[in-house]
Amino acid sequence: NVPVGALHEMAATRPCFPPVDALRVSQDRILEKEMFGRLGIPTPPYRAVDSLAELEAAVAALGLPCVLKTRRLGYDGKGQRYIRKPADIEPAWNALGHVPLILEGFVDFEREVSIIGARSTNGEVRAYPIVANTHRDGILRVTLAPHRHPVLQKAAEIHLKRVLRHFDYAGILTIEFFVRKGKLVANEMAPRVHNSGHWTIEGATTSQFENHVRAVLGLPLGDTSPVGQCAMVNFIGTMPDRDSILALPGVHWHDYGKEPRPGRKIGHCTVVASSAVERDRLVRKIMRKLPPR
Amino acid sequence: NVPVGALHEMAATRPCFPPVDALRVSQDRILEKEMFGRLGIPTPPYRAVDSLAELEAAVAALGLPCVLKTRRLGYDGKGQRYIRKPADIEPAWNALGHVPLILEGFVDFEREVSIIGARSTNGEVRAYPIVANTHRDGILRVTLAPHRHPVLQKAAEIHLKRVLRHFDYAGILTIEFFVRKGKLVANEMAPRVHNSGHWTIEGATTSQFENHVRAVLGLPLGDTSPVGQCAMVNFIGTMPDRDSILALPGVHWHDYGKEPRPGRKIGHCTVVASSAVERDRLVRKIMRKLPPR
Repeated sequence: NVPVGALHEMAATRPCFPPVDALRVSQDRILEKEMFGRLGIPTPPYRAVDSLAELEAAVAALGLPCVLKTRRLGYDGKGQRYIRKPADIEPAWNALGHVPLILEGFVDFEREVSIIGARSTNGEVRAYPIVANTHRDGILRVTLAPHRHPVLQKAAEIHLKRVLRHFDYAGILTIEFFVRKGKLVANEMAPRVHNSGHWTIEGATTSQFENHVRAVLGLPLGDTSPVGQCAMVNFIGTMPDRDSILALPGVHWHDYGKEPRPGRKIGHCTVVASSAVERDRLVRKIMRKLPPR
Repeated sequence: NVPVGALHEMAATRPCFPPVDALRVSQDRILEKEMFGRLGIPTPPYRAVDSLAELEAAVAALGLPCVLKTRRLGYDGKGQRYIRKPADIEPAWNALGHVPLILEGFVDFEREVSIIGARSTNGEVRAYPIVANTHRDGILRVTLAPHRHPVLQKAAEIHLKRVLRHFDYAGILTIEFFVRKGKLVANEMAPRVHNSGHWTIEGATTSQFENHVRAVLGLPLGDTSPVGQCAMVNFIGTMPDRDSILALPGVHWHDYGKEPRPGRKIGHCTVVASSAVERDRLVRKIMRKLPPR
């Protein structure tokens, strides 16, 4: 047991795991976007909104459609309202207006990707390949890994490294991007292991969990290469039939042991295949086995 | 909680996990060799030995060199004495003669291999590729996986399936073989996950541990294919320098958290490489980092 005074001293002299500042910034969508902006990482246009009048002005400034979000405590599409027409403004305000808000311009994206990387206490950085994510109702449904695109990969790694260094970060950190007109637009960051990295458990030489532990302990980081063409399919609300998923070759089953509830992530499966064609065939098979929502 | 009466009923009507009979037979080298013999699986010549006179007669029958072993409770070279010349007989008897013994003819093997397979409660069987094992002082030191040899693979799988069916087995079972003049000679079996299968944690699509769980639960068994050219190096007695092992690409570190003690397996590392040449290069690097014995 380390006395609290010593912990404060450590926090003052060594990187935190994860640094408290990264956690604080990631919990507030305004601070997060300001940080991205200072580091030269593009974001959607946004305005802080604390009254109906400010919301109306912000909608006029950003244009329609746009998305009203709570500044804090939003995840999996919770705490968000789309504003597609002027008549949506007041209901959106009434639904969310009891807490500080942010209005974001809607990004008409071609794709959503994320990058996950580790930074060790001694400054070593390793990034995983970017992955393509598909959401439904604001919840991650499928991740395809790797998403081979050298230009986006390079840009994502540059952004990731800036964020990791900015916070003198130790551990795993994730940034989610929209891809619009072939360019990255940062959506949000997560200072932790991430759902879009669960494929690494079976699909990468070193999983995001192992690299997180290596990073915070100052050990050499592990190889982030994929071992095949991989996918991760989330089980949301209810689990599919276990045995028919397990019978698929190269498919790995994860049951979190959580109580089923609509919209709750309660498990996932990973596909590791030798080709993208085979991977996509298995993903389609799995999707057909998922219970209808 | 299942009442004890119900467990007895289950044990009477369903395969045991692992079957009690397989455990009983594997714990006695005489019963084990008799079982191999009844199933048509070659073994070294052997004699039960319960007195010095019986030992002298057995040595005369089997010829020199030979190996005196305890019938029960031997592992990692414990409870064994080589008899290379007549003068070794009495010291060997004095060292081990307080318990039932077996004398085995010495097999001048070219190689040691093992096969690991799973049999599910519904009878499905899957075998891993055979692997090549190197022992030192009776303790497994290095496993290379897979050991590609279609003729031996086929023979090993036939032997394995006979043993699994004989016991109506459920779970993982391992058989260790000598290879002599290109043929398999059974050494012993282990009705459990096995040290020579630890490479499967990172090196096979489905690890021996996952397939053991699938097998005893009656789930579909997972793909046993290797994902690369793999090796497992045991850490015996003392752990090597952790960071220099972790810095090797594609090398995975396992520390069992056991107290170091001479001859005790306290950890291992796994190599997963894209070629046998690269695998062997990494194994040599690791061996050079091991503390001298």
